[in-house]
Amino acid sequence: MQRTLATQLPTRVGEKVRIAGWVHRRRLLKSVAFLIVRDASGLAQVVVNAPAKLASRPSSQSKRRAEIDALTEESVVEVTGTVIANETAPAGVEVVDAELTVLSVAEPPPFDLYRPTLTATLPTLLDHADVSLRHPARQAAFRMSAAAVHGFRSTLDGAGFVEVHTPKMVGSVTEGGANVFALDYFGRPAYLAQSPQFYKQTLVGVFERVYEVGPAFRAEPHDTVRHIAEFTSLDAEMGFIRDQRDVMVVLRDVIAGMLAAVGEREPAAVAASGLELPQVPGEIPILHFAEALEMISSDIGEDLSGEPDLAPAHERWLGEWALREHGSDFMYVEGYPTAKRAFYTHPDPDRPPYSRGFDLIFRGLELVSGSQRLHRAEDYERVIAERGESFGPYRTYVDAFRHGMPPHGGFAIGLERFMMRLLGVSNVREVTLFPRDLHRLSP
Amino acid sequence: MQRTLATQLPTRVGEKVRIAGWVHRRRLLKSVAFLIVRDASGLAQVVVNAPAKLASRPSSQSKRRAEIDALTEESVVEVTGTVIANETAPAGVEVVDAELTVLSVAEPPPFDLYRPTLTATLPTLLDHADVSLRHPARQAAFRMSAAAVHGFRSTLDGAGFVEVHTPKMVGSVTEGGANVFALDYFGRPAYLAQSPQFYKQTLVGVFERVYEVGPAFRAEPHDTVRHIAEFTSLDAEMGFIRDQRDVMVVLRDVIAGMLAAVGEREPAAVAASGLELPQVPGEIPILHFAEALEMISSDIGEDLSGEPDLAPAHERWLGEWALREHGSDFMYVEGYPTAKRAFYTHPDPDRPPYSRGFDLIFRGLELVSGSQRLHRAEDYERVIAERGESFGPYRTYVDAFRHGMPPHGGFAIGLERFMMRLLGVSNVREVTLFPRDLHRLSP
Repeated sequence: MQRTLATQLPTRVGEKVRIAGWVHRRRLLKSVAFLIVRDASGLAQVVVNAPAKLASRPSSQSKRRAEIDALTEESVVEVTGTVIANETAPAGVEVVDAELTVLSVAEPPPFDLYRPTLTATLPTLLDHADVSLRHPARQAAFRMSAAAVHGFRSTLDGAGFVEVHTPKMVGSVTEGGANVFALDYFGRPAYLAQSPQFYKQTLVGVFERVYEVGPAFRAEPHDTVRHIAEFTSLDAEMGFIRDQRDVMVVLRDVIAGMLAAVGEREPAAVAASGLELPQVPGEIPILHFAEALEMISSDIGEDLSGEPDLAPAHERWLGEWALREHGSDFMYVEGYPTAKRAFYTHPDPDRPPYSRGFDLIFRGLELVSGSQRLHRAEDYERVIAERGESFGPYRTYVDAFRHGMPPHGGFAIGLERFMMRLLGVSNVREVTLFPRDLHRLSP
Repeated sequence: MQRTLATQLPTRVGEKVRIAGWVHRRRLLKSVAFLIVRDASGLAQVVVNAPAKLASRPSSQSKRRAEIDALTEESVVEVTGTVIANETAPAGVEVVDAELTVLSVAEPPPFDLYRPTLTATLPTLLDHADVSLRHPARQAAFRMSAAAVHGFRSTLDGAGFVEVHTPKMVGSVTEGGANVFALDYFGRPAYLAQSPQFYKQTLVGVFERVYEVGPAFRAEPHDTVRHIAEFTSLDAEMGFIRDQRDVMVVLRDVIAGMLAAVGEREPAAVAASGLELPQVPGEIPILHFAEALEMISSDIGEDLSGEPDLAPAHERWLGEWALREHGSDFMYVEGYPTAKRAFYTHPDPDRPPYSRGFDLIFRGLELVSGSQRLHRAEDYERVIAERGESFGPYRTYVDAFRHGMPPHGGFAIGLERFMMRLLGVSNVREVTLFPRDLHRLSP
C-alpha cells in the first residue's frame, strides 16, 4: 500500500491507509490509546482501541497496548488503519483500527518536542540539533529559509544571471586577513574563502551576470548573537552597470522575490510562525549617506558631520524615517565614505570622499551591503598602495582586471542573518542548522 | 538608451541601438573596419566606415580609425549605431554608422579567443582562467553545468525534498581519514567535510527528504585526469524507503531532469557543443552485482566469482550490454559486496555478503553511487567494531541515530565528473571553473 502523508488524510475518509512517521506524543487512556504521528507534512491522530488493564490471558489487544505503553516519543512507526472523520481530532480526521509496526526505537528525547515551544537552553538545543530541529517551529524556520534561497535564485535566473560554484580553498585572502581560517593544503598554507568576491568579479568578465549560493568562512573571534564562523552567502555580481543604482534595482527585485517565494512555497510554515511577510515597495526609498547624517543630526541636535559610518542607533532612526515617510520597511543608504568600505568599492567620482557603496536597511537594521566595484587594474593598484598594503597577496586578484572588465557591481546576502531579521529571532544560531562559532564545532 | 544584446539585434533592424561587450575580433580593411563584439548572448558585427590611410588633416573619421587600430582584443566597448540587414554578416545583421566608447582597455590576451578551439595547453588555460573561460565553447560548458544543477534541484523540489546547507568545517571525519584537509579552528584541529553524508542522514530525521548542492573536499594525492581536491557535490537523501530501489527510482528522475534542463535552458550551448543529449529510459535496466559478474565471466571465459568490485573493463562490458540489450546509455548495478562499500551502507538481509548499494553506469563508466544506509545506532556500533575502527570519532555520527531514524538512503553526484562524462572531455579540470589539485591553488 502506498504511504499517505498526514495532510492528505482528510481526502481519504473511509479508506484504509498506511501512514508512517515519528511518535510525536502519546496519550494513554483507560480503554484507548492515542498516538500523534508526525511526518514531513504534519501531524496525524491514530486511535488504538486497547484497554490499559491486561486481560486475564494475553490477547492481541493487550499485547498491542503493552507495546504502545512502552513506545518512546520519536520512535519511528508505520501505521495501517482506516481514516474516519472526527471533528475533535486535528484536521478533522483520525486513523482507527490501527495496526502498528515499529521501524526504529528511540531513546527518550532530551526535551519535549510536542510542546508549542522548546524549553531547553539554546546550547542544549544546539548540542542536540538532530532532535531539536524536528520541532515543528524549527522545521518551519528552515523550510522558509530554503524557500528564500529558491526565490533568490529564481529571481536572478529570470534576469539572465548564471549560477556558478567557486573554490572555497584559496591561496590568498581578499577581504582582509584578520578573520581567516588557515588550512594545510598538501603541505602549503591555504585559506578558506571569506567570500567569493574575487571569483564573482572575475566571472562577470565571462558571463556578465553571475550568482552563487555557498558557504563563506570567517574566523570571528567575537562571541555575539550575530556572529557565526560559517554562513551561507547569497552572492550576485553584474556587469555593464552605470553605477550602483542598477545593482540596487536588482537587489530590490531579489528581496521581493525571496519574500514572495517564502509566502508562496511555505504558506503553512508562515502561518504557523505567525509571521507577517513585509512588503517591498516597487521603489525602495534612497538617502545619500551625507544627507542621512544631516537629517539625523538636525533631529537629534548633535553634529554628526564627519562621522565615517552609521551607528546602530542611526540605522534605527532611518528605519523609523522610512516607515513614517514612505510606509516602507526597507530603505537604502548609498554613498558611504570610501575609506570605510572594502578596497574594491568604486568611489563616487562626483563626490570623492564618498563611494558608490550602499546598504539595504530593513526595519532599522543593516540587511545587505553592496556597491559598484573598481574595474580597472590601475585603480586597484592605486587603492592598494593608498591603503599602505603590500601588492603581493592581491596580484592574482588584480591581474584578472588586466584583460578587459566592464563597470560592474554586486551584493551579498548572509542567509542566516536575513532569516534572523525576517523572523525577528534574537540569535543567528536559531536559524542555522548546525552553527559553527568560537566554541562550537559539533554536531 | 537601453542596451541591446547581440542576439536581439535581428529584431531591431532599422533602429538605432546601443550594444556593449568585449572586442572579440577586429578586421581592419582599407576603407572600413569590422569589429566583432561579444556579449553574454553572442556575437555582433559592427562596421566602422573609416579608411586606414590618414587624411592630410586629422578628421573625426581618421581619429576613430586610429582608435580602432590601437584597440586590443578583449577591451570592453560600448557601441551606438544603426542595425541593418546584411545576409553575409553573422545572424544576418550588422551595426553601422557606429560610434565607439572604450570602457576598459585590455592587455592583449595570452591566446586567441576568436579561434574555434583554444590552442594553449591546459595548464596555460587554467593559469589564465579569467580569460580562457570567456571562450564561447568553455562558456557553453559551464552554462550547461548550471542548467544541470537547476534540473537536479527542480526535480527534487517537485518530489518534496527540502534544500539544506550543512557545515563544511567539521570536528571529525566520516568518509575515512586518509584524504582529509586539516585546518586550524580557533586553535583546535578541524577538517573540511569530505561529503555532507552525516548531516544529510541526520536531516532525514527532520525533513524526511533533503538535498544539498555544495563543495566537498578531498585531499587527493593522485595527479590524474579525474581527481580534483574540491568539487561540487549534488547530494540527496530520503527516508521511509523500502530498500535501495526507491532511491534508484528518484535518481533516475533526477538524471532525466538534469538532462532535460540542459536541453531546455541551454539549447544554443548544446547546439554549439555538438552534444547529443542521452535519453534516460523510463526504467533503467538493473543487474545484481553477482549476476553481472557471472555474465561477464561466461562472456570473457574467465572466472570472476569472488571479485569484490567491478574493474573499469567490467563496467565497459556492462555499458555495451545495456546498449545492446536495452538500447540504453544507462544501467544500474546493485548489491555490491558490503565489505567494499562505505561503512554506512545497509547490507542486503537476504544475501548477507552483498549490500543494498548501487552504482549508476553511464556508457560504461560509473556516474553515481548510492545505497540504502544503516538506520539503527546498534547497527553502526556493530559495523564500526567489525571494521576494527575505534568508536570515538564516530560518536557524534552514531548518536544521531539514537533518536528514531527511518529506513533511508541516498546518492551523491559529483557535478564536474557528471559534466566530464556528459561532454566526453578527457580531463575533469576542463569542466571546473577554478580547479584545485595537488599542484594548483590559484587562481
